[in-house]
Amino acid sequence: MNEKVTMTRLRYAPLLVFQIILTILYFCFTKYADVEEIAQNQITGFADTHVMIFIGFAYLMTFLKKYCYSATGYNLLLAALVIQWSLLCQGFFHMKDGKIAISLKNLLEADIMSATVLITFGALLGLASGTQLLFIAVVEAAVGCVNLYLCEKVYEISDIGGSMAIHTYGAYFGLGVSAALRLRKSSSEHTPPPVVATVTAQHGQGVGASIPIQKERIRLDGPNYTSDVTAMIGTIFLWIYWPSFNSGLAGSEVERQRAIVNTYLSLASCTVVTFMLSAAVSHKPGKLDMVHIQNSTLAGGVAVGAVANMYIGPGGAIAIGIGAAFISVLGYRYLTPQLEKLGIQDTCGVNNLHGMPGIYSGLLSVLFAGLATTEAYGTELGDIFPATSSIADGQAVADPRSVGMQAAYQLAALGTTLGLALGTGVLSGLIVKTKIFSPLEEKERYDDEMNWELP
Amino acid sequence: MNEKVTMTRLRYAPLLVFQIILTILYFCFTKYADVEEIAQNQITGFADTHVMIFIGFAYLMTFLKKYCYSATGYNLLLAALVIQWSLLCQGFFHMKDGKIAISLKNLLEADIMSATVLITFGALLGLASGTQLLFIAVVEAAVGCVNLYLCEKVYEISDIGGSMAIHTYGAYFGLGVSAALRLRKSSSEHTPPPVVATVTAQHGQGVGASIPIQKERIRLDGPNYTSDVTAMIGTIFLWIYWPSFNSGLAGSEVERQRAIVNTYLSLASCTVVTFMLSAAVSHKPGKLDMVHIQNSTLAGGVAVGAVANMYIGPGGAIAIGIGAAFISVLGYRYLTPQLEKLGIQDTCGVNNLHGMPGIYSGLLSVLFAGLATTEAYGTELGDIFPATSSIADGQAVADPRSVGMQAAYQLAALGTTLGLALGTGVLSGLIVKTKIFSPLEEKERYDDEMNWELP
Amino acid sequence: MNEKVTMTRLRYAPLLVFQIILTILYFCFTKYADVEEIAQNQITGFADTHVMIFIGFAYLMTFLKKYCYSATGYNLLLAALVIQWSLLCQGFFHMKDGKIAISLKNLLEADIMSATVLITFGALLGLASGTQLLFIAVVEAAVGCVNLYLCEKVYEISDIGGSMAIHTYGAYFGLGVSAALRLRKSSSEHTPPPVVATVTAQHGQGVGASIPIQKERIRLDGPNYTSDVTAMIGTIFLWIYWPSFNSGLAGSEVERQRAIVNTYLSLASCTVVTFMLSAAVSHKPGKLDMVHIQNSTLAGGVAVGAVANMYIGPGGAIAIGIGAAFISVLGYRYLTPQLEKLGIQDTCGVNNLHGMPGIYSGLLSVLFAGLATTEAYGTELGDIFPATSSIADGQAVADPRSVGMQAAYQLAALGTTLGLALGTGVLSGLIVKTKIFSPLEEKERYDDEMNWELP
Repeated sequence: MNEKVTMTRLRYAPLLVFQIILTILYFCFTKYADVEEIAQNQITGFADTHVMIFIGFAYLMTFLKKYCYSATGYNLLLAALVIQWSLLCQGFFHMKDGKIAISLKNLLEADIMSATVLITFGALLGLASGTQLLFIAVVEAAVGCVNLYLCEKVYEISDIGGSMAIHTYGAYFGLGVSAALRLRKSSSEHTPPPVVATVTAQHGQGVGASIPIQKERIRLDGPNYTSDVTAMIGTIFLWIYWPSFNSGLAGSEVERQRAIVNTYLSLASCTVVTFMLSAAVSHKPGKLDMVHIQNSTLAGGVAVGAVANMYIGPGGAIAIGIGAAFISVLGYRYLTPQLEKLGIQDTCGVNNLHGMPGIYSGLLSVLFAGLATTEAYGTELGDIFPATSSIADGQAVADPRSVGMQAAYQLAALGTTLGLALGTGVLSGLIVKTKIFSPLEEKERYDDEMNWELP
Repeated sequence: MNEKVTMTRLRYAPLLVFQIILTILYFCFTKYADVEEIAQNQITGFADTHVMIFIGFAYLMTFLKKYCYSATGYNLLLAALVIQWSLLCQGFFHMKDGKIAISLKNLLEADIMSATVLITFGALLGLASGTQLLFIAVVEAAVGCVNLYLCEKVYEISDIGGSMAIHTYGAYFGLGVSAALRLRKSSSEHTPPPVVATVTAQHGQGVGASIPIQKERIRLDGPNYTSDVTAMIGTIFLWIYWPSFNSGLAGSEVERQRAIVNTYLSLASCTVVTFMLSAAVSHKPGKLDMVHIQNSTLAGGVAVGAVANMYIGPGGAIAIGIGAAFISVLGYRYLTPQLEKLGIQDTCGVNNLHGMPGIYSGLLSVLFAGLATTEAYGTELGDIFPATSSIADGQAVADPRSVGMQAAYQLAALGTTLGLALGTGVLSGLIVKTKIFSPLEEKERYDDEMNWELP
Repeated sequence: MNEKVTMTRLRYAPLLVFQIILTILYFCFTKYADVEEIAQNQITGFADTHVMIFIGFAYLMTFLKKYCYSATGYNLLLAALVIQWSLLCQGFFHMKDGKIAISLKNLLEADIMSATVLITFGALLGLASGTQLLFIAVVEAAVGCVNLYLCEKVYEISDIGGSMAIHTYGAYFGLGVSAALRLRKSSSEHTPPPVVATVTAQHGQGVGASIPIQKERIRLDGPNYTSDVTAMIGTIFLWIYWPSFNSGLAGSEVERQRAIVNTYLSLASCTVVTFMLSAAVSHKPGKLDMVHIQNSTLAGGVAVGAVANMYIGPGGAIAIGIGAAFISVLGYRYLTPQLEKLGIQDTCGVNNLHGMPGIYSGLLSVLFAGLATTEAYGTELGDIFPATSSIADGQAVADPRSVGMQAAYQLAALGTTLGLALGTGVLSGLIVKTKIFSPLEEKERYDDEMNWELP
């Protein structure tokens, strides 16, 4: 008995072990970037991206009425872990003299990589145990760094906002895991709702009134009024800083401002059309569905991500945002329920916010890469598509890539990302299905009670 | 019947129509700013202002207990719409070769213009239908851009924080609409409260406890404990970034820091005095009224807005903040109830936060413009009051404006702003009173149930 | 009777008096910094620190279920007051021609100094009256400025993140006050809980359901589900911007980025280990305690504060964060209850978040100052430890300080800070114990009802 308590107490012990391994790796393989390295790696929007990762994703996931501790707590834990880990994984490809030089740029890139894991967390929200999440996080970030390396250095694609390498990758990794877990809901109307918990009114948000009523069994897989309002904190901070996210790694001020303008306009038009569509397709005719407002308004940021620094035109950015709203709202309304029937749970609907808008963005990047001309881009053509440049490192390149070939590479990167994400996702799902990762029983889902001392 | 459902579903269809018109206009009349234009239009505080618009205004308006979805949702919608629209309206006055060049500066100016509409939304919070708000937003932003053009280019006034062109304009436009709508409350103590809704305890913020109690009718035109706490998120973010708002368009670093210092000190002193006054005048002697803390603490930012970059002295900034606290707290306590009796509803009390402090700021700008001397300002005199400069575009100006004349123009701008705001506001109110804008019945006010699928 | 009401209404009148005194002092002794002074005083992270002070501290303290108005409201009031006051106190030591030149740098330093008062407020949260807090704030900030002057100018120590001068000072000042007040809880299980209030379910966060139940007496000295979720807003914003806090006063970009990297890594490792430890020591085996997640995850930021700009190595930063998690979580679990038994209340556990991690950071600065070498630091040695530089103001220094002596001075500063904080804290506590500061009775604790008109 006592031993079992000790084992329970030490359930997060793998965290300490992994943290100690990280510490040793940092002692052996890292150093501070020096003045020259810092000068070469100018970035903007570090703190803004930081807010998106730690506040934006965390609060967007507080929409579940009784999973807010886990949403905010695990988000913090996963991000803190993955940032340390992916900084090493990404740095591995850029070592000099056996050392990774750490500057603000690495931290920003690690922040961005942690988004993949948080997107996957969104798909599995309330469905995976802490141990499962930690294993998934470590695998996903490592493979994500390999995928990013392939995109950036092998295919040499342009994807400034990470719509492929971050959003598409994170979403389909998550759906892969979910498909492998086959977390079917048994929500027949004729049986009592299974996703419930036994609580008293004491757990309410009132000032703790201990109303002496009988214990009730309630559904936990949805929001309440307060949790929807805190979720909007996440939505809005993501909205606000998305332009910074899509422009943080721009190479020049004019490129940066173009990326901001495009992202901003795409988000704005996507938001307007989301409201119109939500009222048109919602369950109660003409009423707005908070799920759409919280999520689909952001799809414009994902959709424009891969082309945000290209010459798509302000009108083009707005048109892209309109398309994103259609993809996302219709996805939430009609596709997600179908996936659920197939046993593919997606709690936050990341397929509709990150997955399909990410693919859409990847395809847009194929189109706009193919259409790119020296007239439109001037000297920026070589900055945005380095492989098409006839000069590299001050040397003339014998046979630079054509824009048609660049388009093909953009498509190849999208395919590789999808394949790697789904493949590794399914594989990870099959692994964490086993007992040692203590998967949740159906009645334990969406419930902070499992992991937290509740007031 | 079925047709009626379709009509209900398509109630936001005008949004899509307007968005498509915007898309076409953007394709025809906009382009990215080029390197030179960007270099000439340096700004700071873009993201900070962004937080004020999307988080600050949104959460400040979540104080109503059952209008939080609308407060956060409509705020996002209105801002996303107005930013696209006012970027065009403002750009119209600055076109080159038939094109508007878009940079971060335009986006910031469009963000700022959207504040006028959100202030008006605050006056009408819970009182106007979605259709009414959308019509008002489009008219208000367009006229607001004309007014701003008059202030900046015709009167050539100094109003760095937009206390006249944004705050005064937005507040009195809203009060104009409200006066035209004559939304009298029938709140006699002898009749049952009319602003109510039928809800069960299920809608509470508890974890959804379905306590089997009878249905109750409750007042919705006030806060509850949680909604007051989320409203403070709005207040504090507005407070934090107000110095950025008032300094974002400063022309030099020394001017920018002066604007920040003045705004900061005015906010700080206004906050301190607001607490003292709130306890002095509140309904329960000595207790603080959350309405004052949420709103009047910000009046110092409005009050110093038009003079934030002038040489008012740190002590002057503090004194201005003290005055703002008196105007705002006493306005909430004594003036707003009088206006309500006249049938002029002002849900958020924007007259006390934006309206009267804005007029106060305008009058201060008359004073400080008249007192400006070359000794105090040095070469900055011509930067802050361009019309007084004896050189323009490298050419000597024959007869530059005196500071006395500048003061007169500041006053004229204030009068013009008030006139345009009230006039167009009343006119808009009379238009949206008609059936086709589906005005709310009294029992539909302050209630998310009207527009949202509630959990 | 009427006179008593007037006295109650004017309970915050000292605020107005103090504000008027401040206004006069600002008129007499301040001016704007000129172009040269601004150029010499470049800073970064002003707005970020601002968010920590006004949102971070405020919302971290909203964890108490019925003290959220006071947490957010008093936080705003205290910060607004102390910033004005400490700007004068700090400026007093740097006057030129009888004037304090105000720039963004002074405002940032005043913001930072206000953190000491907010840390003390955390120790006394729910236990002190408004009058007591105001007196404490004025005394604490003034003495804190003297202590900071001693650290910076007399001992010439390095403490970029203020772990000694801000965190240690604020925490032990608060514990000193608390010790003097001897606010023992009478929480025997055999007597009814004394820290209660009489409320109806109407005060709940529901949409105001007036459930007709009997009045209940409930404990107020803890969180409910919603208040824990809003508290995480504070935690996460503090987490996000802590790197900015620890690097805001860095002298060069390379130093700034090193401070950010170190702070970030220390926070990340501290967060990971906090989760592991929380499950290991919490009351319910294996469950996470929200108190640890809300607070101990931040201890890594305090712990690395005094050495954030030193060459501690990325691995060193991570190791420091691991240590901080142990100090903080074990402190919350085992030390705080012991202090409570001694009559030293510490509502937010500031000893575990700011106090002990601050001392730990001070000791680390002794260690790393002693280990500093010219090989590791190059020309930065003189920037970080000015007293060791052989050149000052362009003049050769006869006998510069050795790194060993520097270590001794770091230790002396830590001792001085502790002594001043505890001494002045106890003294202030003894003063505010007297009737004229209207101390709270036990039944008035942790209750917004005392100071606010509640809905």
